[in-house]
Amino acid sequence: MASHPPAFQSLVENLARLPGVGRKSAQRLAFHLLKSEPALSAALGRDLAGLHARVRLCPRCSYLASGELCAICGDPRRDGRVLCVVEDPRDVDVIEATAEFRGRYHVLLGVLSPLEGIGPGELKVRELVERAGQGVEEVILALDPDVEGDATALYLTRLLKPLGPRVTRLAAGLPQGSELEYADQVTVARALASRRE
Amino acid sequence: MASHPPAFQSLVENLARLPGVGRKSAQRLAFHLLKSEPALSAALGRDLAGLHARVRLCPRCSYLASGELCAICGDPRRDGRVLCVVEDPRDVDVIEATAEFRGRYHVLLGVLSPLEGIGPGELKVRELVERAGQGVEEVILALDPDVEGDATALYLTRLLKPLGPRVTRLAAGLPQGSELEYADQVTVARALASRRE
Repeated sequence: MASHPPAFQSLVENLARLPGVGRKSAQRLAFHLLKSEPALSAALGRDLAGLHARVRLCPRCSYLASGELCAICGDPRRDGRVLCVVEDPRDVDVIEATAEFRGRYHVLLGVLSPLEGIGPGELKVRELVERAGQGVEEVILALDPDVEGDATALYLTRLLKPLGPRVTRLAAGLPQGSELEYADQVTVARALASRRE
Repeated sequence: MASHPPAFQSLVENLARLPGVGRKSAQRLAFHLLKSEPALSAALGRDLAGLHARVRLCPRCSYLASGELCAICGDPRRDGRVLCVVEDPRDVDVIEATAEFRGRYHVLLGVLSPLEGIGPGELKVRELVERAGQGVEEVILALDPDVEGDATALYLTRLLKPLGPRVTRLAAGLPQGSELEYADQVTVARALASRRE
């Protein structure tokens, strides 16, 4: 097999380290970049080289920050007495898009997953416990309603309750606009159990 | 919605320009890079920034080159009288891996695809015609056996035949180790039509 130029090999190997990018996709991406205008590689190269200098995770809540704190932690109008706990920085965007939440966030950077070797030490759990003990009145666990999300919520509830704050979860039920006929059993069972008057 | 730092936005937008990477995957990749050790972003940044300076497409055959010509065009032991035409630089690797071909290559950088607006002008067809007229005895069209590959092979055969060289295609038939029972109709029909004694 003809060997590729070392600079190309190195690019393929580094691309293959990204999640969801196998060796074949890495090669496909690298060839695409080589065929495209050099401006695209140059722009991506600049963005990546400067990423960690220009963007970081907020030391308080782990959301994206360019300054000392993220825009939400740095905003004095946000209510520090309510903490919304999410798995990923992208979940913050989802909740912010509703414009219904005026509290602050805490990004765990993952959920408990023993199979993948992710325990509380791999997540921002210690930081959450510290914050929850400082005048927080409610912790909303906005974790995905799946096995890992449920397990993580249970774990955090046991950890946080003794510290004082109310611990709540997002309501489980039928999504808006959905049809009962097509809903799965667990969703229907949960909606039934949480029925309102 | 909370706005992301501009450096992060820029990275997401540039990642989303890659094939097969939508806006959601671009965000996922960018968050992953931010969470990972800075060394990964730095290495990728270096690779990308230097890509077009260190690697280029061979001006003769469009395979990967780091010097003036690619390793195959620059190798005097390769037989310039046989040209193997492929769609993509990766196809060169596939054929080289067999160690059965001692000629040279010509990478089209695509196949004809009117629906995607890819005509002969978008491919390295003019360059192929030039090379084929210079003492080439056989042109092997090693294009994929699908609609676009077949159409491109037909087009190139008509173009190249009058110039003198034999024009051949890879044999179509049952792949080694496969079972007749699971082969599709077109493959069986082709294998039947091309049966050997």
